[in-house]
Amino acid sequence: MNGSDRGLHSRRPTIGVFDSGFGGLTVLKALLEVITGADYTYFGDTARLPYGSKSVETVARYAIEAAHYLESHGAQMLVIACNTATALALDQMTAAAHVPVIGVVEPGAEAAASATKNQKIVVIGTEATVSSHAYRKALESRQLQAREKACPLLVPLVEEGWVEHSITEQVARIYLAEAFADGFHDADTLVLGCTHYPLLKPLLHRVTPGNVSIVDSAESTAHAGASRLRQLVPAIADGEERRSVPRFKFFATDSTEKFRRLGERFLGHPIDNVEHVDLKE
Amino acid sequence: MNGSDRGLHSRRPTIGVFDSGFGGLTVLKALLEVITGADYTYFGDTARLPYGSKSVETVARYAIEAAHYLESHGAQMLVIACNTATALALDQMTAAAHVPVIGVVEPGAEAAASATKNQKIVVIGTEATVSSHAYRKALESRQLQAREKACPLLVPLVEEGWVEHSITEQVARIYLAEAFADGFHDADTLVLGCTHYPLLKPLLHRVTPGNVSIVDSAESTAHAGASRLRQLVPAIADGEERRSVPRFKFFATDSTEKFRRLGERFLGHPIDNVEHVDLKE
Repeated sequence: MNGSDRGLHSRRPTIGVFDSGFGGLTVLKALLEVITGADYTYFGDTARLPYGSKSVETVARYAIEAAHYLESHGAQMLVIACNTATALALDQMTAAAHVPVIGVVEPGAEAAASATKNQKIVVIGTEATVSSHAYRKALESRQLQAREKACPLLVPLVEEGWVEHSITEQVARIYLAEAFADGFHDADTLVLGCTHYPLLKPLLHRVTPGNVSIVDSAESTAHAGASRLRQLVPAIADGEERRSVPRFKFFATDSTEKFRRLGERFLGHPIDNVEHVDLKE
Repeated sequence: MNGSDRGLHSRRPTIGVFDSGFGGLTVLKALLEVITGADYTYFGDTARLPYGSKSVETVARYAIEAAHYLESHGAQMLVIACNTATALALDQMTAAAHVPVIGVVEPGAEAAASATKNQKIVVIGTEATVSSHAYRKALESRQLQAREKACPLLVPLVEEGWVEHSITEQVARIYLAEAFADGFHDADTLVLGCTHYPLLKPLLHRVTPGNVSIVDSAESTAHAGASRLRQLVPAIADGEERRSVPRFKFFATDSTEKFRRLGERFLGHPIDNVEHVDLKE
C-alpha cells in the first residue's frame, strides 16, 4: 500500500467531490448510483464561482486549495466534478494531492469515442473549458475530430431555472447551429462539457438531430471513479461493501442556505447539512 | 483638514473606483465627463466576480479588501461603482476606509426622485442587490414607492455581447412585464441598478412604455462624486484644476488581457495599462 490509498482497506472510503458551485452535484448524483459503498464529502467553491470565465492561474490556485481542504477532511479519492477545473488544473491538482484524482474530461472523451460512428464530436462548455482545448486534445488523442463551442449563457439560464424555457431553447439552437456547421454539420456525438448541462438534456435532445448521441460527462466520470475505487478497494468490486445509506458532508464557501436551495435541484434530493467554509483570503 | 481628506489640497486628486469586474467602467466613463481634474485608479475584482449572486458576508469581505488596496495606491476618494457592493457593504466600506466613500444607490435614488411624477419606481438589478432592498429603503425614505426586480440573465447577456439581440429583448420584456405589473403597471421611472445595464439603454427604452424615464446610476453617481470632490477640493469647483488628460491605473484580480478586451466595451475607449493583482488567499 502506498501513500495514495492509505486507510482505504480499513474502513468505508470517503470520496471527495469538488466543484466551483452546485453543478458538480450532478456528478455526485451519478456517483451515488454506481458507488453505494462510500461516503461523500462535497466542496462547492460558491464564493468564487463561476470558474468558467476565469484564467488558468486563478482556477488552478482555487482548485488546489479545494483539494487540500477535501484531503484534510478525510477524502481518500478526489473527483473533480468541474469541467473548467479539470480542463485547466487537473495536472496541478494531481501533483498537489496525496490521493488519486479523477477529472471529468478523460471519461467524457472515452464515452464519446464509444458513442461515435463517424469520429466527429461536438463539445459544448464554458469559455474557459473551451479555451483550454482540453477536450479537443483528449478526443484527438483518440483519433476523433473535435469542434468545441463555448455556451456562456447556458449556466445562467439553468441557474435561473429556465431548463424548459423557450428562451433557453432559442439560445441552445443558436449555439448548436454554430457548432454543427461546416465540417461538423454531420457530427454524431455531443459532449456536455459542463456539469450544469445535464439539466438541459431533454431540451438538448429536442434541438439536436435525431442521430446525435448526447454524452453526459457526469455519468462517464462516475463510472471512471467506480473503476478506480475498485482497484483501490477490491471489496467494493466483490460486493462486500456495506450497502448502507452513504453519509454526506457538504461544504460551501458562500451562503449555505442558497447552496441547500439550489443544490437540491441538481442533486435531486434534499440537502441537510451544509457547512460554511471561510477560506483564508 | 481631517484624516479623510489629507493631501487633497496639495495635488491633483486620485479617485479610486471599485467594481467586481468591468461594469464599473461605465461609472468611470461617466466620472470622466464630469471630473476632468483628477486621476483615476480602478480596481476590478475579476477573479471573484460576479458579486451579484453572493452573500452579504462574502461581498463585504471582498469589498473591504478592495478599499484597502485602492487606498494603499493613493486613492483619496472611493467610488463604489458596483451596485451589489454598495447595497451590501457600503457601511462596512465607509467604516473601514480613511477617505470619503461614495456608493451608487443613494445617487440613483435621488435621481429617481427628481425624475418621477407619480412616485412609482421600478428598480432592476442583480439577485444580491434586490435581496438587500437597499434601493427600496433609499426610495421609501424619499416617500417613493419601489418595486425591485432581479434580472440575473442581463449581465451574462451583456457579457456575451448581445446588447441588441432579439434574445436579450425577449428576456428584458419578460423581466419588465413582471416588474411593471399590478400596482406598478403605471410606474414612470426605471432605475438601472447594475452597472452592466447602461449598455442596454437603447434596448430598454424600446421595451418600456414611452412615458418611462430611465435613470442610469452611473451618471447620478458621477455627479454625486463631483459634488463631494468639490467640497474637498474647492479648486475643482473654481475651475482652477489643471485640465490635462487624466492618468489611469487599472488593477484586475484575474486575466489582464480579458480585462483590457472586455473593458474597452464598457469604457468606450482603449485600455492600455492593466496590472494583475494577486490578493492573498
